[in-house]
Amino acid sequence: MKQNASDKLIEKIIKTKNPIVVGLDPDIKKIPLCYKIDVRSSSNKFEQVSEMIYNYNKDIIDSICDIAPAVKPQMAFYEKYGSQGVIAFERTVMYAKAKGLIVVEDAKRNDIGNTAQAYADGHLGKVEMLDGSFISSFDVDFLTVSPYLGSESLMPFMNECVINGKGIFVLVKTSNPSSGEIQDVVSSNGKSISENIADNIFSNAKKCIGEKGYSSIGAVVGATYPEDAIKLRKIMPSSIFLVPGYGAQGACVKDIMPCFNPDGLGAIVNSSRGILYSYLSNGFDVYCSKQEYLSSVVNETLKMQKEIYSELKTIFPNIVY
Amino acid sequence: MKQNASDKLIEKIIKTKNPIVVGLDPDIKKIPLCYKIDVRSSSNKFEQVSEMIYNYNKDIIDSICDIAPAVKPQMAFYEKYGSQGVIAFERTVMYAKAKGLIVVEDAKRNDIGNTAQAYADGHLGKVEMLDGSFISSFDVDFLTVSPYLGSESLMPFMNECVINGKGIFVLVKTSNPSSGEIQDVVSSNGKSISENIADNIFSNAKKCIGEKGYSSIGAVVGATYPEDAIKLRKIMPSSIFLVPGYGAQGACVKDIMPCFNPDGLGAIVNSSRGILYSYLSNGFDVYCSKQEYLSSVVNETLKMQKEIYSELKTIFPNIVY
Repeated sequence: MKQNASDKLIEKIIKTKNPIVVGLDPDIKKIPLCYKIDVRSSSNKFEQVSEMIYNYNKDIIDSICDIAPAVKPQMAFYEKYGSQGVIAFERTVMYAKAKGLIVVEDAKRNDIGNTAQAYADGHLGKVEMLDGSFISSFDVDFLTVSPYLGSESLMPFMNECVINGKGIFVLVKTSNPSSGEIQDVVSSNGKSISENIADNIFSNAKKCIGEKGYSSIGAVVGATYPEDAIKLRKIMPSSIFLVPGYGAQGACVKDIMPCFNPDGLGAIVNSSRGILYSYLSNGFDVYCSKQEYLSSVVNETLKMQKEIYSELKTIFPNIVY
Repeated sequence: MKQNASDKLIEKIIKTKNPIVVGLDPDIKKIPLCYKIDVRSSSNKFEQVSEMIYNYNKDIIDSICDIAPAVKPQMAFYEKYGSQGVIAFERTVMYAKAKGLIVVEDAKRNDIGNTAQAYADGHLGKVEMLDGSFISSFDVDFLTVSPYLGSESLMPFMNECVINGKGIFVLVKTSNPSSGEIQDVVSSNGKSISENIADNIFSNAKKCIGEKGYSSIGAVVGATYPEDAIKLRKIMPSSIFLVPGYGAQGACVKDIMPCFNPDGLGAIVNSSRGILYSYLSNGFDVYCSKQEYLSSVVNETLKMQKEIYSELKTIFPNIVY
């Protein structure tokens, strides 16, 4: 039996005293120039970008692997460069895992029937080869999953959690301004759509609770809607929340506290732009050196850790780390 | 100004008298053995699968390119094999386009803010290279898009339709059994979520209506819910419906008629398993020859064309083709 993904994540959070996840969203417009001129000679422009992204991510991973528990590569920023982008993604995942980081793939995948199964197999499970053998493909620790197609579409992913020790974060309440258009609509049972999805997560989360008391079936709950977070925390006590919206999207440290349990666990707060691109407003510009850039990444990571950890210590006297 | 994607699709439908789209969902368990033994020598198992999938798709494309207007590769079946799968996808798209087929990428992508923009750029638009140039990446004709994150998340994709001549199909009412859990919920304005999404599509569809009178902003409407299709057809008169659920999922020719307009246009009906894998119940087995297999693919495509086209001719006397 493989170790439960939630246990792996919580171990790392406790070890680093840091419940955050560093987003790896490579944005060619914002990456320092030193990375862009320093690519091995390939005449293929997609290969150049792929190499650049991997080298850039590798430096970030080296810089934060002892101070943060997890990274969250956002697939869109890789996939946009086609197969070459996906190569950069695969290399990034392998490197991050080798450095002991938990990898949360943010891809918001889903579909129906055997297509949902294909996504679950590819991102979390194993895929069949021509000789009949089964091999892991992306093999990430956690995947974000969309619930729009209904509960049956979530089952292949939940099965990977129950059977295979993997983890998922189902989109329950997202951080963006128009998230309520669908997610806040109240259904005939008097509950909002996000609450109904939370109920479904709660039922299934029970099936894969790890030794630390948390389930590997988690939820995405935006920091920008703290009142929803209070309700959702009650509905899904054992699910870990992946919390976007901190920093760049406007939520502050008080806003994210409802996502945590009194043990100081139960949430990982994401920052992507806030960590990767704050150097541009911190006295550096795109002409800075790698050393200058990476010092900014480390400083922003530690600043966020300090902000969140101090607040957790203040409001939760029984925090376990 | 590039040709509107809806015009390109409708031209092909009229030319082939066939409003269907052939799903390219390579399933290693169901593909005839002759394709699996006939791969060029690579010791990498992922490369072997990639080569096999491409060769298989190429034969299907050659067989149906004069009798069907469009193909719909389902990204999950490629992506599950990682970057090598995506290479097979990219080669398939290029080959299908070279053969004059319209390519509908079924990937159900979406996210928020600049992440949604990254998906839109990668699948429909152009992406920036290290030298500052912009190049098309996947460059498909149409992409399926999920609306779960709200109307603002759809905008980058709709912009590609308005500005760049591309097309999308937004998931409005999907064909699976649990689709109603979210999509049928009635919101405070008295309309179901799928109707609200349809209203949003209608408002934006107006911005990119082609010469044939149809918009390149379309909708996914499952054949398995004909009563919803009647309502949705009225809300979105100029949107093309991508209609899954025919055949393998249980919907018959009468069920799909509400998806069409009286001109016999306005819908493309998908069949994936029904065309690709019916050979297994038509007297062949996985040991059949390529010739036998492809004859089954052609026969199933023509059978479906005949079923749908005759019914359209019967109930719509003013059909334009």
